[in-house]
Amino acid sequence: MGVGLIGGSVGLALVSRRLAGRVIGIGRSAASLAEAKRGGTVMETTTDLAAGVAEADLVVVATGVAAIPALLDEIDAAVRPGTLITDAGSTKHSIVAHWEKRRRSRRGRFVGAHPIAGSHRRGPAAAAADLFTGRVTVVTPAKATPQKDVEESGEFWAAVGSTVFIMPPRDHDRLLAATSHAPHVIAAAVAAATPPEARQFTAGGWRDTTRIAAGDPELWADILLDNAPFVAKSLSRIAAVTEKMLAALEKNDRKKLVSLLEAAKEDRDAVGS
Amino acid sequence: MGVGLIGGSVGLALVSRRLAGRVIGIGRSAASLAEAKRGGTVMETTTDLAAGVAEADLVVVATGVAAIPALLDEIDAAVRPGTLITDAGSTKHSIVAHWEKRRRSRRGRFVGAHPIAGSHRRGPAAAAADLFTGRVTVVTPAKATPQKDVEESGEFWAAVGSTVFIMPPRDHDRLLAATSHAPHVIAAAVAAATPPEARQFTAGGWRDTTRIAAGDPELWADILLDNAPFVAKSLSRIAAVTEKMLAALEKNDRKKLVSLLEAAKEDRDAVGS
Repeated sequence: MGVGLIGGSVGLALVSRRLAGRVIGIGRSAASLAEAKRGGTVMETTTDLAAGVAEADLVVVATGVAAIPALLDEIDAAVRPGTLITDAGSTKHSIVAHWEKRRRSRRGRFVGAHPIAGSHRRGPAAAAADLFTGRVTVVTPAKATPQKDVEESGEFWAAVGSTVFIMPPRDHDRLLAATSHAPHVIAAAVAAATPPEARQFTAGGWRDTTRIAAGDPELWADILLDNAPFVAKSLSRIAAVTEKMLAALEKNDRKKLVSLLEAAKEDRDAVGS
Repeated sequence: MGVGLIGGSVGLALVSRRLAGRVIGIGRSAASLAEAKRGGTVMETTTDLAAGVAEADLVVVATGVAAIPALLDEIDAAVRPGTLITDAGSTKHSIVAHWEKRRRSRRGRFVGAHPIAGSHRRGPAAAAADLFTGRVTVVTPAKATPQKDVEESGEFWAAVGSTVFIMPPRDHDRLLAATSHAPHVIAAAVAAATPPEARQFTAGGWRDTTRIAAGDPELWADILLDNAPFVAKSLSRIAAVTEKMLAALEKNDRKKLVSLLEAAKEDRDAVGS
């Protein structure tokens, strides 16, 4: 469900690794579906969700986070009992909670997931068979999710190339606020705070720092709103470090400033290029 | 003077474009000088500043900003009268003001400059003959600088490949605070505010946003301290935009948040990848 960067890459990985007999792309836009099929990311396409999932062994929901809860309900009403459903949403708590609210009446089995392989690029054309290779997918079971379902979902995300971590949805949302959602706000703020007359005096540093600000505003607004409390906490941690650096600057305290920049460099170097 | 990323690239551009009969690398570290000579970035090397500049037509000071004022005095005492001197420091006001204070007793002619071609990479090994190609160099004359000197300095920075802009030192420092110095603080703050346990859940977005935090803490502390008032102003502009986004988040005002992210995306897209 969804044939963009993530959904298209799932399709390409399934096709190229021969992991599925049929790969059906489901979406609302006939043009995107046609583009996905031309690019070989799916074998069949349909705009009819119920028909698309009716015979599926596995359904992967790869749309913006705001659409996922309602889609899960629609999918669940159309699948065969016991069908495994997973998603690729950038936030997890509210999506998993939505499923769990009606766990007892569900036909399918849902285990939320987040392949950390986003990009400011979008659409079927951005898809790649190796998008997940060397990347992490966080699988986020609810307390009531059977271990067997967690394992099957993890096996799927490992089969398309990613390294799987399993953690509760809230832990995921807290960590991703720090590594993705708050940095997105900051990148956007740096871009927006740069006076237009300064643009021609930017170099690689500015372009790197602000790159993700080119991401889709609607998709990102939904991600940020869905994780607002953790995003706010991360932003306040970033603001606190910035304030320390600013205080050292204003006091002309070179030693303190160097030590803050050194600590930041160590944190950055620990991750790699 | 200085054979690292910038000085080494000046040397390589001069050698490869056959712009100079002799290119002498001057530095304090015999090891760096030897590495620069092996890499073909300079033709001769010396650790003796006075000997190195004694017969020069042009001296380029490519060291960290904190060292430049004292080096200008040393260089000026050793050059032939009328020798053109330029630099590559990331801040300009204090360097130019230092020269101007004793303008009347100077032997050389100094015109400050900043090739906007920095990187988190350093040293002679990072140098490239085309580092300046397609990049901007800002040439920053003082009010008293003769037009002829501005032109000669501009011609030099154009000859090594860059597009030259001329503006007063303070205007340069104000613009670069927005495009380079404040983003450096922000990138460092994002890196330092990321909990260690979150590191394995970073992707391209975090790595891009924080990349410049890997820069040299000592060099950057000097740049930031030398431009503290403008850096503080840029940081407060970034904080103001961040606060607006945070307010929209906390009020669950999707329309406002989308419009802020859209404005940021437009600003980012205006610069290009």
